[in-house]
Amino acid sequence: MQEIKINGQRYKETFDELSQFGLTGRGGINRPALSDADKGARDQFCRWMKEAGLTVRVDDAGNYYGHRKGQDETLPPVVMGSHLDTVYNGGKFDGIAGVQAALEVVRTLNDYGITTKRPIEVAVFTNEEGTRFEPSMLGSGVLAGVYDIEEVYRTEDRDGVRYGEELERIGYKGLAKNRLKTADTYLEMHVEQGPVLEQEGFEVGVLRGIQGMVHLEVTITGVKDHAGPSPMKYRKDSLVGAAEMILEIQKAAYTVGHDTTTTVGKIEVFPCSSNVIPGVTKFSVDIRNEEDSYMDQAVKLIKGKIHQISERNGLSCEIVDFWRVDAIHFPEEVVALVEEAAKERGYHYRMMVSGAGHDASYISMIAPTAMMFVPSIGGLSHCEEEDSDFADIEKGVNMLLDVALKRADR
Amino acid sequence: MQEIKINGQRYKETFDELSQFGLTGRGGINRPALSDADKGARDQFCRWMKEAGLTVRVDDAGNYYGHRKGQDETLPPVVMGSHLDTVYNGGKFDGIAGVQAALEVVRTLNDYGITTKRPIEVAVFTNEEGTRFEPSMLGSGVLAGVYDIEEVYRTEDRDGVRYGEELERIGYKGLAKNRLKTADTYLEMHVEQGPVLEQEGFEVGVLRGIQGMVHLEVTITGVKDHAGPSPMKYRKDSLVGAAEMILEIQKAAYTVGHDTTTTVGKIEVFPCSSNVIPGVTKFSVDIRNEEDSYMDQAVKLIKGKIHQISERNGLSCEIVDFWRVDAIHFPEEVVALVEEAAKERGYHYRMMVSGAGHDASYISMIAPTAMMFVPSIGGLSHCEEEDSDFADIEKGVNMLLDVALKRADR
Repeated sequence: MQEIKINGQRYKETFDELSQFGLTGRGGINRPALSDADKGARDQFCRWMKEAGLTVRVDDAGNYYGHRKGQDETLPPVVMGSHLDTVYNGGKFDGIAGVQAALEVVRTLNDYGITTKRPIEVAVFTNEEGTRFEPSMLGSGVLAGVYDIEEVYRTEDRDGVRYGEELERIGYKGLAKNRLKTADTYLEMHVEQGPVLEQEGFEVGVLRGIQGMVHLEVTITGVKDHAGPSPMKYRKDSLVGAAEMILEIQKAAYTVGHDTTTTVGKIEVFPCSSNVIPGVTKFSVDIRNEEDSYMDQAVKLIKGKIHQISERNGLSCEIVDFWRVDAIHFPEEVVALVEEAAKERGYHYRMMVSGAGHDASYISMIAPTAMMFVPSIGGLSHCEEEDSDFADIEKGVNMLLDVALKRADR
Repeated sequence: MQEIKINGQRYKETFDELSQFGLTGRGGINRPALSDADKGARDQFCRWMKEAGLTVRVDDAGNYYGHRKGQDETLPPVVMGSHLDTVYNGGKFDGIAGVQAALEVVRTLNDYGITTKRPIEVAVFTNEEGTRFEPSMLGSGVLAGVYDIEEVYRTEDRDGVRYGEELERIGYKGLAKNRLKTADTYLEMHVEQGPVLEQEGFEVGVLRGIQGMVHLEVTITGVKDHAGPSPMKYRKDSLVGAAEMILEIQKAAYTVGHDTTTTVGKIEVFPCSSNVIPGVTKFSVDIRNEEDSYMDQAVKLIKGKIHQISERNGLSCEIVDFWRVDAIHFPEEVVALVEEAAKERGYHYRMMVSGAGHDASYISMIAPTAMMFVPSIGGLSHCEEEDSDFADIEKGVNMLLDVALKRADR
């Protein structure tokens, strides 16, 4: 295997060229789904796919694909992909690195004159970020049957513009029959968007799956009162209660262990005035684990603590189960191939799970899926400072190449 | 003394009549300073003062006074007063109860045909609430020399309308020579705006003074990061640090004791998204005590804890000393007269301090001052539900009468 390798120089040049679409003054990318910048990137990427000999098709959700013929066209394809949209003022790598990796794998197969047994496809999914049209991963969600296409068309951005209208406007409203219906394998290379690989000194990450996630919305109600004339002992301060809960929520991650994460990312107090005891405090709780059982254990522990602390302090609490996604476990045989690629290439790799959702989350519902991560510098993502080392990315693309080849030639 | 008493029936009728100016649908009052509703209340109150034989004058800050002749007009007057403006959608009692009390005392002296040795004045101060024009107590602040009148005129409300313009518009821009320059005594009856008298079963409160207050603005900076991919051990979560601080700030009130109060009323996190670890958390700290030394002790303790917790968690902190008002101690001989009035009337009273600022805060800088409190039902204030029992108020007005008479006849 080691003799075949991708062209890192070409990868970077293509990458830089695509970065022009939506480039911000500070080196980030502002390319919300179905915007003019997105159309520009799509048009350019489709040209490249055609130049690489791929047959391009667009489906009714605006997902687009490049098909590379296999020896046996009756077999389901090996698909590689990700997304080209960004959050508002996002970075150059999230999603994009993976789409470019897929194209580079195809170009490399062309360089080496390889025709695989199964067809190979490059897939680009619409509105992964959910930053323009909520929720995220709408394009891949339609493929998995999670979202109805008509419902997706009606989704409005913050200016009331609809997904369906914008899709038509930029010329990417394709046909339902063009959807990716099934695949032999789905592979996605992505930047980590976290600090682990960098901080622990690994070159690449081999993913076992994607963490499950629970999102709770908590409202604590006490009694609003003047800060001055209200003695401490008579107070029912919702924020003091919430502060105790926030510490217990953090502790719960350690108590449950097994890499559970718990985060209070959003908090608001009412009326939010320096001289008024907050009558109401609202906050979010984000709980993740790669095993649903640990996640559920943390949720139970946290809910119990919130009730206990409320009761002890004469506060009332309301906990809304806002969102839940089960953990995803990638099939062992595909994960094993990703690990094998890292080993054969001699890369210093780490087994891990993704803490964030990806198009792979939904595509794993219709095809055996695996992912590989490359390090994010400083762990930063969803910001203009998002960065990765191209030497690391090259390793990730080589692994993608290896796994795609092995799966396609099965 | 006991034979003289105020007319509770008349007080309530006058009170209800004045409540028509700015009455809201839910029984509160919306009467921001210098609004049309304020003008209506002013005009009505000036008519009543004139009907009661008082000579009305208006000063350059819009404060207005009713002068009742004494036997010796060369002596400084005994002044009673408060304010008639409210917060947006405020209550019927805050300030208003005290202004009406002053008028009722004058009417009672008229009933009994009493001419005091010193003149007596009723004073109504402009913009006590600070809800339309910030900061609060602008009218009484001008008298105390805390604010320059030209600076006050330039103060804008949230629509950019100036204090000076509005004062002229409603016809209450008087003359600087009409200001209250000094007084033999200043007396103010006020609703408690807190729960203590009601919860502890007292009929009236005798005030020793007004608490000192420190307002800190704290900014805690950690590292913003994705909630999902960031393991707990690598996090620098500014909100988790702030939560620990909030609990320590509460504890500090008990550690210092002596009725110290500490309040975090305002908190904001950035970027405030459920799946992002808050990089920055900002919050306010309000610290009060009737003795500056205890207040300063609490401030020192709290600042130390904030620094300690920041350091231990790898966070950075910035603490801004936003505002400080020293504690005010009313002169013992005037406080003693208020206490004597409560004793002589047989009222169940409590010695206490005010946790909130009042016009008396500034007037105490130019005249020996004392205050008395009547209970607030449920401790509620600055809301439409603000309420007090007229039977309690009557007791407060009788005490005001007693103290005013004793001081005026000295």
